[in-house]
Amino acid sequence: MNEVIERILNHRSIRSFEDKPLTEDQIHTIIESAQAASSSSFIQAYTIIGVTDRKKKAALAQVAGSQEYVEKNGHLFVFCADLHRHDVIAEMENKDLGEPLESTEKFMVACIDAALAAQNASLAAESMGLGICYIGGIRNDLPAVSEILQIPTRVVPLFGLTVGYPEKITDKKPRLPLTNVYHINGYQQEKDTFIAELREYNDIVSRYYLERTGGKRADTWTGQIASMLEKKSRMYMKEFVEKQGLNKR
Amino acid sequence: MNEVIERILNHRSIRSFEDKPLTEDQIHTIIESAQAASSSSFIQAYTIIGVTDRKKKAALAQVAGSQEYVEKNGHLFVFCADLHRHDVIAEMENKDLGEPLESTEKFMVACIDAALAAQNASLAAESMGLGICYIGGIRNDLPAVSEILQIPTRVVPLFGLTVGYPEKITDKKPRLPLTNVYHINGYQQEKDTFIAELREYNDIVSRYYLERTGGKRADTWTGQIASMLEKKSRMYMKEFVEKQGLNKR
Repeated sequence: MNEVIERILNHRSIRSFEDKPLTEDQIHTIIESAQAASSSSFIQAYTIIGVTDRKKKAALAQVAGSQEYVEKNGHLFVFCADLHRHDVIAEMENKDLGEPLESTEKFMVACIDAALAAQNASLAAESMGLGICYIGGIRNDLPAVSEILQIPTRVVPLFGLTVGYPEKITDKKPRLPLTNVYHINGYQQEKDTFIAELREYNDIVSRYYLERTGGKRADTWTGQIASMLEKKSRMYMKEFVEKQGLNKR
Repeated sequence: MNEVIERILNHRSIRSFEDKPLTEDQIHTIIESAQAASSSSFIQAYTIIGVTDRKKKAALAQVAGSQEYVEKNGHLFVFCADLHRHDVIAEMENKDLGEPLESTEKFMVACIDAALAAQNASLAAESMGLGICYIGGIRNDLPAVSEILQIPTRVVPLFGLTVGYPEKITDKKPRLPLTNVYHINGYQQEKDTFIAELREYNDIVSRYYLERTGGKRADTWTGQIASMLEKKSRMYMKEFVEKQGLNKR
């Protein structure tokens, strides 16, 4: 196993950091790494915002559900799907690009571009001995986030990424069985097998929690996910994204 | 610079592979690496389909615009945003999860989850000395792709990923200026600076093409992207995604 794969397989989300800022060099290496990722038709449809302002970090932490590690970390990045740059291109090139920029296709491209870049950033950070955690919680209130970060139209903040020196190392959570995630030559259609795999995985996840909570908690994965989904969180998203001029047609 | 960052910064898309299949071990390491990525609230909302069937590969290559390297490579993966698994969860847990599964929020989560996994897969492959290329071209005709790969509702194939032994190494394309992609404490609002940066980048991109085509081609980035967007490609996407039961509310 080479060093890259070792790093990848050793990933765990870190939720407690030292209050020690990253250096400019570290930040630049992380951004350059993000930018080195592939981009659909070279469209480069994302922007990364680094947040250093204490008040803004506190406000973002509040949006994310007052998670302490959103405030206290080495650096906080916010990854955005961005087609605003392409509005500027339309102006520079004197073209009407409204329709394609409003399409679901291009919104998907922007989300994917941003995520590919973010995963490179994460791995670059982890390879420096830093820990990372994605902060989906900023999506709790994107109108607020947009105000805090002065987000223009055609831009949607997707998630935060906290990076820093780990204070507490967490355990690695077991993933879905490989055969449930990886199918050959077509989507796996045998429902009984599919459900049997999920039940098998439930046992693994329950054991994981039992061991780590001294028997107090024994959640299954399907139970956990069903409860999470049942909350119907962030149902305002369609409206917000459309208001930003994306995913409209 | 450590090995991980070196690998990341050294990325280039490979579009010509030897006709030498990956081993089962290589494929499994790539999938395990994909699965090790972070996932929003541990939802694991993606599925990867490995395509080995020659006829299916040929059909997918045709959808993607008859790109030879979609057929001839070491392995072809198709990454899908997947909330079908969560429909099965709803049944197992006896809950009505239709509304959240149809939300734009959860569709975004699935796209992001799939992309984070894919970038891990790419880097794992590259660290083994293999080359990769993302195949957005499969989105040219997702109804056809869905038939080829028996895609159920709540699943959207997002992109292919060809992996294999590189036959020809390509050059690394210059990325947007770091300051254009990375803003501090808020979205950069000074339009003149923004445009000046894009013009500076246009010069870099033109020089890149001039040098590599012996003076025959001198595209600017903004020109290239405007022409690409002008084609209004894949405008059927919104309808298709909604028909799959996603991004509807």
